Amino acid sequence: VVSPDWNVRSSPNGGYLLCLGLSALHQMLPHPDPFAISAHYPLRADVGPAYVRTELVRQGISLSTGVARIQQLRRTRVHVTATFGDLTQMQGPTAVQAELPELPPPDECVKADPELAGEFMRRFDLRLTPDSSAWARGRPTGIAEIAGWIRFADGRPPDVRSLPLFADAFPPTAFNVVDGIAWVPTLELTVHVRGRPADGWLRCRFRTRFLIDGYLEEDGELWDSTGRLVALSRQMARIQPR
Amino acid sequence: VVSPDWNVRSSPNGGYLLCLGLSALHQMLPHPDPFAISAHYPLRADVGPAYVRTELVRQGISLSTGVARIQQLRRTRVHVTATFGDLTQMQGPTAVQAELPELPPPDECVKADPELAGEFMRRFDLRLTPDSSAWARGRPTGIAEIAGWIRFADGRPPDVRSLPLFADAFPPTAFNVVDGIAWVPTLELTVHVRGRPADGWLRCRFRTRFLIDGYLEEDGELWDSTGRLVALSRQMARIQPR
Repeated sequence: VVSPDWNVRSSPNGGYLLCLGLSALHQMLPHPDPFAISAHYPLRADVGPAYVRTELVRQGISLSTGVARIQQLRRTRVHVTATFGDLTQMQGPTAVQAELPELPPPDECVKADPELAGEFMRRFDLRLTPDSSAWARGRPTGIAEIAGWIRFADGRPPDVRSLPLFADAFPPTAFNVVDGIAWVPTLELTVHVRGRPADGWLRCRFRTRFLIDGYLEEDGELWDSTGRLVALSRQMARIQPR
Repeated sequence: VVSPDWNVRSSPNGGYLLCLGLSALHQMLPHPDPFAISAHYPLRADVGPAYVRTELVRQGISLSTGVARIQQLRRTRVHVTATFGDLTQMQGPTAVQAELPELPPPDECVKADPELAGEFMRRFDLRLTPDSSAWARGRPTGIAEIAGWIRFADGRPPDVRSLPLFADAFPPTAFNVVDGIAWVPTLELTVHVRGRPADGWLRCRFRTRFLIDGYLEEDGELWDSTGRLVALSRQMARIQPR
C-alpha cells in the first residue's frame, strides 16, 4: 500500500516510491546492497493499493540486476532497475578528488517547515543552510544549490536502502533561481550507493548547472556523519509553472 | 547483429550496445528524442546475432517510456530504459551555471591511437588534451579527468541518438590515476540528452571525483560546436586490475 505518510502535498514522494521498488528487489536478489539504481517516473502514483512486480534480469557471482515496476490500475507508475552487490566485498584503489561540503552546523541552519511540503516533511529533521532556504524568505539567491543536514525524525538511523529517499527529500534547487514554480516533477532518478552510512546526520548538497528550456539535472552528494561519501544522485526534472 | 566494428579489444563497446537498444526504442515510441537513458550491463555481450526485445512502459502526450533488452543465448546483456520526448517542444526558463570547458583546439591535442583500443577507435577522430593523454606517455597526471574533441571518422555529423556512443568513447578517467588497470567495465550508464547537436566537433570532458574501493563514477559533459551543452552522462564502473 502506498502510504499517505510520505506525500508531498497530495502526491507520494518519488524517492519513497523508489524505495518500495528497492525493498521488493532486496527480497528477490541474493546481494544485500543496491549499487546503481535507475528509476523512471512515467505516471503519477496515488496513495492506496499497488502491485510491485519484480523480474530477475541476471544473477551473477558478485553482482545481480533486477527490475521492479510499481503498478496501479495495471499501469506502471515507477520503473526501477537496480544492480545489487555487497558493499563489504568491494576491493580496489581509493582516490577521492573532492572536498566534504562545508556547511554551518545543523543548529545554525534553518529547520524546514513541515507546513510547506505536507506529510513528507514530518518524517524528517531537515536543516537547510541559510542560502539554501533564502527562497522561502522571498529572497532567492539566484544560485541553483540547496544544501543542508537530514535525518529521520523518529531517530531511526539511515541505512543503505533509505539513501534514495534522502536523495529526493530536499526542496528543488530551482526554487532559488526561478519564480512561480508549481512543482518540479522527476522524470528520472539515478542513485549510486558508495558506502553504508554511519548513524547520525547526513550532510547533503544538490546542484543544478544546466536549466535549459525548463528541464534540469539535479546532482546530489550524500555524506555520512563520519565524513564519508555514501551516495551520489542525479535526477532529470522539469519545471511545472504555476 | 552485434558488429565487430565497434569492438574495444575483443568486446563490443557499451555505448554502441546502448545505441542498438535506443534504435529499437526509437522505432516503437512515438516521440523522436531520448531525454533520459539508463543502461545496466549485467553480462558481457559478444559479436554476433542478438535479439533486442522492446516493451512499452507508458505512452504519454509529451513523454513516453520504454525498455529494451539486448539478449544473446536468452540472457540479457544490456538492459536499457529510456524516456523519450521532443527536444523541439521543450519550453521553460533557461539558466546555465557552468562554463564551456576550455580546451586547446583539436590541432593542439593528441590524436588517439587506434592501435590502443582496436576497431572501435577507427570509427572516430578523437583528440585528447595533452593532460588527458599523459598516461599514454607513461606520465599519468594523478587527476581523474579526460577531455578532448570527438567526431565520426567518416564525416557523418553527430545526432541525438549517437550521443550515448560519444559518452562512452573516451579512455577511462582512471588511467590518469591508477596504474596496472586491465579494463574499467561499466555497471551502469545514464545519459541525459539536453539538445540536438550541431554539425562539427563535440567538446567533451569526463571527471571522476570518487574512486572508492575500486568503484568510481565517471561524469561527462558533451558540448556541440556552437558551445551548447547537448548531453550529460554518468556511469558507475569498477577497476579490473591486470
